[in-house]
Amino acid sequence: MFKERIYNFSAGPSMLPLEVLEQAGKEITNYKNSGMSVMEMSHRSSVFQSIFDETIADLKRLMNIPENYKVLLLQGGASLQFAMVPMNLITKTGKADYAVTGNFSNLAKKEADKYGEINLAASSEDRNHTYIPRQTELKLSSDASYFYYCANNTVYGTEWDYVPEAGNVPLVCDMSSNILSKPVDVSKYGIIFAGAQKNMAPAGLTVVIMDEALSGHEMDMTPTMMSYKKMIEKDSMYNTPPCYNIYILGLVLKWLDKQGGLKGMQAIKSEKAGILYSFLEESRMFSPCAQAGSRSDMNVTFRTGDADLDGKFVKEVSDAGFSNLKGHRSVGGMRASIYNAMPMEGVSKLVEFMKEFEVKNNV
Amino acid sequence: MFKERIYNFSAGPSMLPLEVLEQAGKEITNYKNSGMSVMEMSHRSSVFQSIFDETIADLKRLMNIPENYKVLLLQGGASLQFAMVPMNLITKTGKADYAVTGNFSNLAKKEADKYGEINLAASSEDRNHTYIPRQTELKLSSDASYFYYCANNTVYGTEWDYVPEAGNVPLVCDMSSNILSKPVDVSKYGIIFAGAQKNMAPAGLTVVIMDEALSGHEMDMTPTMMSYKKMIEKDSMYNTPPCYNIYILGLVLKWLDKQGGLKGMQAIKSEKAGILYSFLEESRMFSPCAQAGSRSDMNVTFRTGDADLDGKFVKEVSDAGFSNLKGHRSVGGMRASIYNAMPMEGVSKLVEFMKEFEVKNNV
Repeated sequence: MFKERIYNFSAGPSMLPLEVLEQAGKEITNYKNSGMSVMEMSHRSSVFQSIFDETIADLKRLMNIPENYKVLLLQGGASLQFAMVPMNLITKTGKADYAVTGNFSNLAKKEADKYGEINLAASSEDRNHTYIPRQTELKLSSDASYFYYCANNTVYGTEWDYVPEAGNVPLVCDMSSNILSKPVDVSKYGIIFAGAQKNMAPAGLTVVIMDEALSGHEMDMTPTMMSYKKMIEKDSMYNTPPCYNIYILGLVLKWLDKQGGLKGMQAIKSEKAGILYSFLEESRMFSPCAQAGSRSDMNVTFRTGDADLDGKFVKEVSDAGFSNLKGHRSVGGMRASIYNAMPMEGVSKLVEFMKEFEVKNNV
Repeated sequence: MFKERIYNFSAGPSMLPLEVLEQAGKEITNYKNSGMSVMEMSHRSSVFQSIFDETIADLKRLMNIPENYKVLLLQGGASLQFAMVPMNLITKTGKADYAVTGNFSNLAKKEADKYGEINLAASSEDRNHTYIPRQTELKLSSDASYFYYCANNTVYGTEWDYVPEAGNVPLVCDMSSNILSKPVDVSKYGIIFAGAQKNMAPAGLTVVIMDEALSGHEMDMTPTMMSYKKMIEKDSMYNTPPCYNIYILGLVLKWLDKQGGLKGMQAIKSEKAGILYSFLEESRMFSPCAQAGSRSDMNVTFRTGDADLDGKFVKEVSDAGFSNLKGHRSVGGMRASIYNAMPMEGVSKLVEFMKEFEVKNNV
C-alpha cells in the first residue's frame, strides 16, 4: 500500500510524467470549457480535431519528420503492425529481410512468414540475444521488399547502436521501446512504428511514421483497417481513433518540449542509464546481462548470478517502493526499465538501494 | 465556452456518467494505493489483472452471459470486426448472409465481400434506411456460415425491435450503439461485438462476446491479432490490451448496477426515448425520420422539413449547451443520441428548448 507514488520500472505500460497525469486529472470532467471530457468528445468535433492536429504537428516538429512522411495514430499495438507491414509492403517482390534480435522481432518474423518469403538477415539467438549484430554480419537480399528490425529489445536489454544500411531496400523499424528517447534521422526509414505504452501514452495507441510512397500496395485480403493507404486517406479516422490516448500523447509531447526536446531527452536518458551501468560495472554482486556496446538505455537487464538472491532482491526492492524490477520470465534476473518518464531520482535511489542490499548481504 | 458540463448528444464518442469521470479523476495519479495510475500499470501486474477480471465478471453477470461464451476485450473498433468476423467464421461454407439496414452494416458487408460469397439477406435502402425489415422479408440461406446484422443504426435512427431467427445459422450482431441499454438473450447469438465509445467506455476498446465453439476456423492469412482462437487462448492479452479503457468500462459497469442493471437501464432509456418521440409525434414543427416500430431508443432522428430551419435550430440549441444535435452529413436534419449516460434531465430540457423554439419561430 503506497500513499505516495512509487518508482515504476515496468517494461510497459510504464510511468507517465506526473505533471501529465495531474493536467489530465484537472480537465477530466471539462476540457478547456468544452463542457465535456476528452473521453466524451466526438472525434469529428473541432475541439478534438485541434487536439489531434496539434499532437501530430508537435510529433513532426520534435522528430523532425520530413514532409513526405505521414504520421498515423492507430490501434492494435506493434503486434498488429507485425501483420500490417508485410500485408502492405511485401507485394513488391514477395520477399523481405528480418533481423531477429529478441522476442518481438521473432514474433514479427513469424507473422510475416504467413505473407511472403522471409529471409533471416541476422539473429542474435546464438548468444541468447545479449548482443546486436554488426552491419557486416547482416545477410541482406537485394530483392527484399524491406528490411525489418526492432531498435530496442525490452526483454533482453539490448539496443541497436547504429542504423542499419540496406541500400535501396526500405528500412522498417519497431521503435516501441525507444522512440522519443533520442533524435532519429527519420529520412533513413521507410516505416517507423511504435506501441505508445512505453514512451508515449497509455496502451491502446500505435504511432506509425511512414514514407507515403510505400503505401498503396496492399494484398487483396488486407482488412480496410490495416491498409496504410486508407488510413493516410482518412487521416487515421476511418473509424473512431483512440481519442483519449492521443490526448495524453499530446500532453506528453508538451512535457518533452520542456525537457529540451529529443536532444534534451537524449542527455537525460544517457545520464540515467550511465548511473545504472556504471554501478553494475563496479558492483561485486550485480552484473549487466547485455554485452557492452549493445546495451539498452531503456531496459537495463542485470543479475546476481544466484537465482535465490535475485528473488530476494526483487522482493525487497519492491517492498521499498521500486516496482516491476523482476526480469522477463523467459530470461530471469532483473530489469530496470527507465523510459523517458522515470525521474533521475528514481534511478539514483535504486542504485542507493542496491548498494545497501550488497552490504546487508555481505558482499 | 462552458464552465459547467453540457448535455452532449454526440453519436459517439459520447457522454460518460459524471461519477465515473470523477472517480477516475480522483485516482488518476495513484490507483488504490498502488502508487501509480492505471495508465502506468503493467498489464501483467496483479492489480491490473484484478481490474480486468472484475470487469469481465461484472459484464458476464450484468448481461447474463452463458458459461460457454467468452468475453474478449480488443482493439480496432467495430470496423476491425467487419474483417475479423468473416476471416474467422466464413471458412465453414464460404458464404454468409448480411442484412444491410444502414451505414455500418453496409460497410461490414463490403468488407466481408473480400473473404467469401455474401448474400444480401435484406436491405432497407429502398426507403433510405428508415425502417427495419421484418422476419418474413429476410432472404436467408441455409448454407450461410452466419447471419449478420447491426442491431441499431446510429446514422438513420432505427433499431431492430426483434431478434432475427436464422435456424441453425449463428447470429453475428454489431451492438455498438445499443449494448447495455436493455437485457439481451446472449444465448441466441454466435457473436455479439461492440465498439465501446457509445455505451461503455472511451474509444479504443472493442468488446466481443462469443460462443467459444465458433472459434478456431480462421483463414490462413488471418493476422494473429485477429484470431478469436488466439485471443481466447491468451484471455485478450496476446499483447498489451487498452488497459485504461478497460478500467473505465469497469467503473461504468459499477454505475450500471446502481441504475438497476440492464432491466433498470431499459426502463430509463425507454422513458427518455418516450419523452422525445411523444413530443415529436405531437409537434407541428419537428417530425421523426424513422418509421414507427423501427425507431431507435438510442439515436432519435428528426427534422423540420426545412433545411434552413434545421440549421437555425442546430446553431441555437448548441449555443444553449446541447451539443452535437446535427444529423449525420449523409441524411441531414437532427439527431439526439441518448445513450445510457445521458441524464433524463438532458432529454426533458432539450424538449423544453424545442417547444420554446417552436413558439419563437411562429408555429
